[in-house]
Amino acid sequence: MKKIIVIGASGTLGKAIVEQLGLRHEVLTAGRNSGQYQVRIEDPASVEALFQQVGKVDGVVVAAGDVHFGALAEMTAEQFQSGLASKLMGQVNVALAAQKHLYDGGSITLTSGSLSAQPIRFGANASTVNAAVDGFVLGAAIELPRGLRINSVSPTLVDESVDVYGAYFYGMETVPVKRAALAYSRSVEGAENGKTYRVW
Amino acid sequence: MKKIIVIGASGTLGKAIVEQLGLRHEVLTAGRNSGQYQVRIEDPASVEALFQQVGKVDGVVVAAGDVHFGALAEMTAEQFQSGLASKLMGQVNVALAAQKHLYDGGSITLTSGSLSAQPIRFGANASTVNAAVDGFVLGAAIELPRGLRINSVSPTLVDESVDVYGAYFYGMETVPVKRAALAYSRSVEGAENGKTYRVW
Repeated sequence: MKKIIVIGASGTLGKAIVEQLGLRHEVLTAGRNSGQYQVRIEDPASVEALFQQVGKVDGVVVAAGDVHFGALAEMTAEQFQSGLASKLMGQVNVALAAQKHLYDGGSITLTSGSLSAQPIRFGANASTVNAAVDGFVLGAAIELPRGLRINSVSPTLVDESVDVYGAYFYGMETVPVKRAALAYSRSVEGAENGKTYRVW
Repeated sequence: MKKIIVIGASGTLGKAIVEQLGLRHEVLTAGRNSGQYQVRIEDPASVEALFQQVGKVDGVVVAAGDVHFGALAEMTAEQFQSGLASKLMGQVNVALAAQKHLYDGGSITLTSGSLSAQPIRFGANASTVNAAVDGFVLGAAIELPRGLRINSVSPTLVDESVDVYGAYFYGMETVPVKRAALAYSRSVEGAENGKTYRVW
């Protein structure tokens, strides 16, 4: 039984991850406004404070961070930067801190998404951020000490979010969120490092 | 004969691009401190001012932007962010502005790099930024109007830079910068959109 913290635990994806990992592990939940611990991943000081509170863990999972959706023709640098600051830099902040607060052999699992390779209208920022997260995982993996590992899960739109985001994803196959949650389990409980698990 | 502006024209890569494109086109050169026009790509206002100065063009090529090289264990959020602000957001700033200042059928060509897929020690920020640039190109391509195109060139270390960066890249095959420059020609003079031309 491992001690794992899930950041973004109250989201559609987060809840499914907590349920899946909770079958076999002690799962701590964190979120911006919910869960057992509060954290703003965009703020390195808030991330460090989280790890000071929870102490050492065996696994860190992030299913949090926003991107900017909007037409490329009207996209401003500020809007584009907001996605970099949240879903990209937020997850990087967690990973940079986690490498110091994980037990030997522990894992970091970040969230990217299928738009890295399957672009949609209004999704230029998301394609950028998701590709960046996967690139970070690949680059960071080879430098982690003490048997630490880092992977990303790249889900497509999940069935449970079609009501909200379906109009952006017409024609794309969706997957049950339970299937996406399995990929997080594979990252946390497997032995691979520097991988992106595509769930699409 | 097209009118093409090359940003970062005085670098090792930039000079080779100017030479290659100059065989058949009118090439304008820009850089932070050199070239015919000065621009700081990290600053959207500076980028907009550049396009106001040069007027409409048929092609924009960016071979500029810095990343942070350093050990992951000691990397700070600020250091990581510096690479995002320069090589990633800088090139995005150029692309967002260029879509409004290109003639119909014009092209944008950005620069990523092989570390997106072939990580090296100290290169986590570069892997992230390079993957992000390729992801941006993929996402932005499908929204461009008026026959505009956007591609990226992903070079490995060039022979001419081995003296400076070779120690980071031991064991990796390098390529003549002339070969990398050909890929920019292919992007500018070809007809593809949303592609990453790997030169490795």
